[in-house]
Amino acid sequence: MKTKARFYHAGCPVCISAEQSVAASLDPTRFDVEVIHLGQAKERIREAEQLGVVSVPALVLNDAVFHINHGADLTAIK
Amino acid sequence: MKTKARFYHAGCPVCISAEQSVAASLDPTRFDVEVIHLGQAKERIREAEQLGVVSVPALVLNDAVFHINHGADLTAIK
Repeated sequence: MKTKARFYHAGCPVCISAEQSVAASLDPTRFDVEVIHLGQAKERIREAEQLGVVSVPALVLNDAVFHINHGADLTAIK
Repeated sequence: MKTKARFYHAGCPVCISAEQSVAASLDPTRFDVEVIHLGQAKERIREAEQLGVVSVPALVLNDAVFHINHGADLTAIK
């Protein structure tokens, strides 16, 4: 069974770079990567916050949050 | 031919978490991941700086630097 990976972003250039380079480079045999655009899916901001995401882009693997560079704080997206 | 990925760290807990979760999750069919402990290989700090690494842990993919969370600034390792 694959591990679910979540990549939260907001469409910013920093986000797109991280998505195309890091999220897209995860091993597809081990991970199902869900990409969530929080600017378009604001109803999922709370979920991201509860996972510990404070800025985007962020990758969540096994409940561990990895903030990758810095595009925008979640507070700026709300 | 595989792409070379470089993961720079300094042995800190944040670094180890990122190594075990992010660096170890890259697709092994597409990437050769080199792990560099800058605390033990201080002669490679200059190389990291030239690539644009300012803190560890950092993942370098195709010359793009992705700082993952924040363990330590390079200046603190020297």
